[in-house]
Amino acid sequence: MKNIKIVIEYDGTRYCGWQRQKNGVSIQETIEKAIEKVTGEKTEIISSSRTDAGVHAKGQVANFLTSSTVPPEKICYAINSFLPDDIVILSSQEVPLDFHSRYSSKGKKYSYTILNRKIPSALLKNYSAHIPYELNIEDMIRASKYFLGEHDFSAFKSTGSSVKGNVRTIKRLELIKDEDIIKMFIEANGFLYNMVRIIAGTLIEVGKGRIKPDDIPFIIDSRDRKKAGPTAPAQGLCLEKVYY
Amino acid sequence: MKNIKIVIEYDGTRYCGWQRQKNGVSIQETIEKAIEKVTGEKTEIISSSRTDAGVHAKGQVANFLTSSTVPPEKICYAINSFLPDDIVILSSQEVPLDFHSRYSSKGKKYSYTILNRKIPSALLKNYSAHIPYELNIEDMIRASKYFLGEHDFSAFKSTGSSVKGNVRTIKRLELIKDEDIIKMFIEANGFLYNMVRIIAGTLIEVGKGRIKPDDIPFIIDSRDRKKAGPTAPAQGLCLEKVYY
Repeated sequence: MKNIKIVIEYDGTRYCGWQRQKNGVSIQETIEKAIEKVTGEKTEIISSSRTDAGVHAKGQVANFLTSSTVPPEKICYAINSFLPDDIVILSSQEVPLDFHSRYSSKGKKYSYTILNRKIPSALLKNYSAHIPYELNIEDMIRASKYFLGEHDFSAFKSTGSSVKGNVRTIKRLELIKDEDIIKMFIEANGFLYNMVRIIAGTLIEVGKGRIKPDDIPFIIDSRDRKKAGPTAPAQGLCLEKVYY
Repeated sequence: MKNIKIVIEYDGTRYCGWQRQKNGVSIQETIEKAIEKVTGEKTEIISSSRTDAGVHAKGQVANFLTSSTVPPEKICYAINSFLPDDIVILSSQEVPLDFHSRYSSKGKKYSYTILNRKIPSALLKNYSAHIPYELNIEDMIRASKYFLGEHDFSAFKSTGSSVKGNVRTIKRLELIKDEDIIKMFIEANGFLYNMVRIIAGTLIEVGKGRIKPDDIPFIIDSRDRKKAGPTAPAQGLCLEKVYY
């Protein structure tokens, strides 16, 4: 038995999310079916993150067990030949049997893209959140600093998550404005359910002037989901990289 | 009667191109139908460029005549409400009656995106040409300089074009590499049919080592389409801006 780690890029637009669901096609089952065609084995793959419907990935990581004799580095090419073109396995390699995509992860990097102009975009509609009100980027950057470091992020967590403990460490939170695009990059040792989208939604409220930058520490301390901003739309989110 | 100039962004993936055709849905007819719903008039719109199937635009320009009393600056919002979300009118304004999107144009800027890595991209499949062979960017940049200035570009023209005269002036041709993306920006006073895609295809051949940078002047001088590289795929092309 070999444990194979794969790195995956996908366009989440057409899918009901990573995880298998009764209604809709999931990324997980699409990849599992392709692996089955390569190896002849029923497979269950474990991912680092169960991304929601519409969320994208440039570097999702998953692993699965196989007794296939295809060389581990070549398995990605074989799987790709059975995948639709909005899911691509970027690489494959053998890892120790105790490697677990989720539990072995030391951190993750996400990006969140905001289109800040009056008129929506034909080209970015599936890859950004459209905010037609002018956002104050200086305030957003000022607010973003308060998220850095170790905090209890209960105020930035949707219910429905089964994870224990709400303390996480944000190592990097950067906002970059390029014409009418605002891109947020966020890196942490782990994320609570919807945490990136709620932080993005809160920073958008700051940009609109509805939350003051200096209110962020109080929102964090409150541990009250209702004090933070709304969950920003799924299509702006992209899982960039998983660290081990 | 008013002459209305509109600036359009579109994702060309689903369309048979700008121009009305018997088979497939065109961007032109989609916009004309939306305008008809706003103004109640049958309309023919004239564009600066008849982009091919799969080609995108961030700044296509078109114009049409109307007797509508909707304020010219507001017409874009009205049209957008009847358009699918992969076509967006960015702005609308009244222009003199003799303004013609194509004949009044003083120049255009296009971009061409190349994904240069072994494995294709799930997120960029519709927005780039995938070249799995390593490209020599230094050679491509060296070759690109020879295109600058006024030349007869017959060697870089597909048949089927009705334009008279093959002399054009390229004012800017820049290649920017960012990780595995090579982006070409090209600006000229006008372009022959498929000229950007044939220049891109020729520069890709240079990157592969099949054409030497110093061969470009001879290819231009030959005025022979067969001497230049192949027409690069449509989905890498984007009409960025039209100048008046």
